[in-house]
Amino acid sequence: MGTAVTTAESSRAPHRSAALLHEIATQLRIDSVRATTAAASGHPTSCASCAEIMSVLFFEVMRYDVQEPRAAHNDVFVLSKGHAAPILYAAWAEAGAFPREHLLTLRRLDSDLEGHPTPRLPFVDVATGSLGQGLSAGIGLALDARLLGVDRRTYVLMGDGESAEGSVWEAAELGARYGLHNLCATIDINRLGQSQPTMLQYEMDVYKARWESFGWQALVVDGHDIDALLAAYELASESHDRPTIVLAQTVKGKGLPGLEGKEGEHGKPLAPEDAKRAVAALEAELHGHDGPWAPRMPQRGAESNVRPVGMRERAPTAAPPYIVGGKPFAPRKAFGAALAAIGRDWPAIVAIDGDVRNSTFTEYFGAVAPERFFEGYIAEQNMVGMAMGFAARGRIPFVATFGAFFSRAFDFVRMACIGDTGIKLAGTHVGVSIGEDGPSQMGLEDLAMMCAEPTMTVLYPADATSAWRATELVAAHAGPCYLRLGRPDAPIIYAADEQFEVGRCKVLRHSDTDRALIVAGGVAVAEALSAHDDLATSGVQVRVIDIFSVQPVDRAALVTAARACGGIVITVEDHYVHGGIGDVVLAALAEERCVVHKLGVREIPHSGAPKELLHRYGISASHIVTTVKAALAHAS
Amino acid sequence: MGTAVTTAESSRAPHRSAALLHEIATQLRIDSVRATTAAASGHPTSCASCAEIMSVLFFEVMRYDVQEPRAAHNDVFVLSKGHAAPILYAAWAEAGAFPREHLLTLRRLDSDLEGHPTPRLPFVDVATGSLGQGLSAGIGLALDARLLGVDRRTYVLMGDGESAEGSVWEAAELGARYGLHNLCATIDINRLGQSQPTMLQYEMDVYKARWESFGWQALVVDGHDIDALLAAYELASESHDRPTIVLAQTVKGKGLPGLEGKEGEHGKPLAPEDAKRAVAALEAELHGHDGPWAPRMPQRGAESNVRPVGMRERAPTAAPPYIVGGKPFAPRKAFGAALAAIGRDWPAIVAIDGDVRNSTFTEYFGAVAPERFFEGYIAEQNMVGMAMGFAARGRIPFVATFGAFFSRAFDFVRMACIGDTGIKLAGTHVGVSIGEDGPSQMGLEDLAMMCAEPTMTVLYPADATSAWRATELVAAHAGPCYLRLGRPDAPIIYAADEQFEVGRCKVLRHSDTDRALIVAGGVAVAEALSAHDDLATSGVQVRVIDIFSVQPVDRAALVTAARACGGIVITVEDHYVHGGIGDVVLAALAEERCVVHKLGVREIPHSGAPKELLHRYGISASHIVTTVKAALAHAS
Repeated sequence: MGTAVTTAESSRAPHRSAALLHEIATQLRIDSVRATTAAASGHPTSCASCAEIMSVLFFEVMRYDVQEPRAAHNDVFVLSKGHAAPILYAAWAEAGAFPREHLLTLRRLDSDLEGHPTPRLPFVDVATGSLGQGLSAGIGLALDARLLGVDRRTYVLMGDGESAEGSVWEAAELGARYGLHNLCATIDINRLGQSQPTMLQYEMDVYKARWESFGWQALVVDGHDIDALLAAYELASESHDRPTIVLAQTVKGKGLPGLEGKEGEHGKPLAPEDAKRAVAALEAELHGHDGPWAPRMPQRGAESNVRPVGMRERAPTAAPPYIVGGKPFAPRKAFGAALAAIGRDWPAIVAIDGDVRNSTFTEYFGAVAPERFFEGYIAEQNMVGMAMGFAARGRIPFVATFGAFFSRAFDFVRMACIGDTGIKLAGTHVGVSIGEDGPSQMGLEDLAMMCAEPTMTVLYPADATSAWRATELVAAHAGPCYLRLGRPDAPIIYAADEQFEVGRCKVLRHSDTDRALIVAGGVAVAEALSAHDDLATSGVQVRVIDIFSVQPVDRAALVTAARACGGIVITVEDHYVHGGIGDVVLAALAEERCVVHKLGVREIPHSGAPKELLHRYGISASHIVTTVKAALAHAS
Repeated sequence: MGTAVTTAESSRAPHRSAALLHEIATQLRIDSVRATTAAASGHPTSCASCAEIMSVLFFEVMRYDVQEPRAAHNDVFVLSKGHAAPILYAAWAEAGAFPREHLLTLRRLDSDLEGHPTPRLPFVDVATGSLGQGLSAGIGLALDARLLGVDRRTYVLMGDGESAEGSVWEAAELGARYGLHNLCATIDINRLGQSQPTMLQYEMDVYKARWESFGWQALVVDGHDIDALLAAYELASESHDRPTIVLAQTVKGKGLPGLEGKEGEHGKPLAPEDAKRAVAALEAELHGHDGPWAPRMPQRGAESNVRPVGMRERAPTAAPPYIVGGKPFAPRKAFGAALAAIGRDWPAIVAIDGDVRNSTFTEYFGAVAPERFFEGYIAEQNMVGMAMGFAARGRIPFVATFGAFFSRAFDFVRMACIGDTGIKLAGTHVGVSIGEDGPSQMGLEDLAMMCAEPTMTVLYPADATSAWRATELVAAHAGPCYLRLGRPDAPIIYAADEQFEVGRCKVLRHSDTDRALIVAGGVAVAEALSAHDDLATSGVQVRVIDIFSVQPVDRAALVTAARACGGIVITVEDHYVHGGIGDVVLAALAEERCVVHKLGVREIPHSGAPKELLHRYGISASHIVTTVKAALAHAS
């Protein structure tokens, strides 16, 4: 083991004796065993290894108001090793959040004590259970505290197995970069993963060297030694420039007879008889503490009135400056301008970029609100994770990068959507219309990814004016949102006073004699308008819809339009043909007996000039014209 | 700067003089400037910083046959900083792979010299351009060499900005874990990202400490000092237990007048006049070397006849042991059994798991072919990246984890699909039918993600027999494949001699009086069959199709069946309702004027018992029955 922290290094007298904290740890083990055995599934051995850590954090170190778990001045706890949910629930029950009996509803459909924690519970900020995400959320939570000016501390408990996730190192680097001394993570180093020992097992010196090289104060402790844990957390709280990692050497299954340090016991509840024996053995260690432990309350000083930044306290809007028929302007650039305009005086808004601020134009926001602009560097997972932490506390975090690179963070997006956490993702450089950089930089599956998530709102503006309004809409909208933003300059279609809504499309062209409906999005809208004009010269009238809101989609308007056009529909999008606008339209019209022709990218595209690529991959005006004519010929 | 490597540490006399290698570096800069200026886009300054590294690697260190770039005994080079593509192309042109004039076709639609490298080029193993992926591919390539028993070395060139990607640290950890002394990475530490300086800038000691803490030999060098580079690569080749990282301090824009170390010049080609001046200045440094440089050829010893493991040398099959009507068996477990059966004697097959081998059942393969089983730990990005490296050389790499966790690696999957690289992904624990673990562990967007990629083949077996056959099919199929595997035991539907094909569904129930078509996949197939029987008792005949091949889908069979059923179609799937089977079927029937009812998961699910959840989220037999009856009532 590396240089261990000992009690002598701690100066503050603990609030409670180590003996009592030990007793609570034992109670937490009992509750974890009982709950998982009642559920007949779950991870008791993963709970047992961190019982002392939980006891020390929840009943000595952390200051929080159980009745108001998300109060701004409370210390915050994130269980990154989400499979240890039973001990998290046990700690909150012990603290008085709900009756202990309720723990026995673990993992039941009628209980919010789910297999892994979700924000359905008032004391859970972000959903965890996909490993390696909690530390990133912790960074967002710690930065939120710094912005608020409260001295709350953020504690994250990770497993050792999840240290292999690269996202942990992204977070490590950023946490140090921002000097987050109000952030303290603990790794429960119990040596055993699910199927085998971890890579490092008990190589505590290697853990320490790694975290120190990433700029953290790294403290090695015996994770079952309450005094050592107390001392470590005290040292952590004394850091004034760096976050702290407590590297706690523990034993998986600690305290459970026959299971201590045993391989092959991950995720296995004890059989009822074994559980009874284990509980009896643990209960024998209890010496009768007097009822539920009240945790330490936060110091309510000057900060006692601080409240989280309300999400919808105010929603500034400003008129977009673009003129119909005027100079074409890139939607991504309009997003940047709008974010700066509404975000400058709206304290809830923060922005995180991945070293592409001069491509996403979040640099405009950075210029007007530098204290709320965070450079995330090229580490997309951590960016989204940080945003989850911010959003959990009522902020409106915009995360911007190329749409393609959100695929890097899809698991974080997925988890944010599980928690209905209000992250705002702005993906630029979508589709083949980015041109010469080639397929690696083209967002062509972002709609498939984002629309799959049922809680995600997806807007795809076609011009600068609608991009500006879409930015306002997602800022004001609760829940996770994705904003799809084209790279090239686009003609201005909408006047500044045009009204946009989530869930509403725009009918751009219509007549009483429309014979086909074209539904397009983004860069394809201009192609559709051009096709409309071309077809009109040959006497073919078509209706043109700008989808704008891809999810939720404006089903009623699509149905009305499709019916008016004889059920002949053509969709056009700069996205792969699966999972995008075409499929959204097909689903909206699924009961309408329409004929739908999807135009989209059907192969891996190549580098080339934007216009050339739109044509090569079948989504240009001329393809729309050809498709409409063929569809009408076939229908007649 | 940290402890620097100096020439004195190298024992081998270089093949060419430093002066000549310097001259080649200058020529590579000239070519990079010319190509990007001709293209009017690209990254000349990112090329300029690594010119000496490229010169030294390609014309002194690496041994390879230009005419046969993927020969097994060639040293391998991966350009992880894919935006420096022009200098990669320049190096291959210089080596004689193609005429230098061709460099001026950079980024054109009619040229394979794309903005970022893709395997359309014979000398590119894996597509790069999304940062932080090359090192993982390098690990796969290095492990492939070890399995082959050839002493080729793998060189990876990374940028410093991409060090922030967590995937780099996943790869770092694994590369050391496997003791890959035949792997040498270089970081071109030019201090500047796209929009700003990198986090570490020139903190070479921090770089060194990090890589050493991750178990690598870390060598700090002046990246423009050819002798120092030669010495470093020599030291790297002498390592017998660890991979080596060469930390090369460089200057962005080096050698380009007015651009050296200048911020704000990322991704900007030189204007034609500036390019002319820069080329003139660089040409003044040339002293007339004699034509193209032949690189060093590989030593052709005992290994000279080694060929890559052919992908389809043989495709063993074995009869699945499951019996119709016999004991239900989990598809994921049948996958594990099939992989072991076909993989044991098929040297091309390797498997990589993420600490869930006892859930995905790759442990069966690990038991019979331990030398070809690689534990990837909980680091999904690197797992897929390793597989890309393996697949690039003709191996058949299976990567297994929970379907949900492939969302972690989506960007790697995306890049593999850009390269049409034959990775084989096996995603288990899909859908709400996993039960109590809750939404974080449920793969509910995997079909949306995988089917979006046009080159991806997606199979979704409904029982153990078809899971076994699907495993054989994806092994034998070229290109990337995804196998979706349910967790629970499922009734055996198919006899061992049933024939399965990519692109073919199975019609399980049909009659001459079918009034609706039910298309289901995976766990929902048993629900559909149960609904069929229930409906039959009320005199309603329905056709039932097991989709099996989600992509490509059996459009012809679906159209035929839908027509026979009066165009009334119900789809059922344990997946979110967007991007899955319902959308695939809608797309297949888009021109059929059908009525399609999609049954799928429409909200964030909860923990609960599997059967209970199928019911709660509307994909159980009773929902199918209700939907069919309502559809028929509406249609009549």
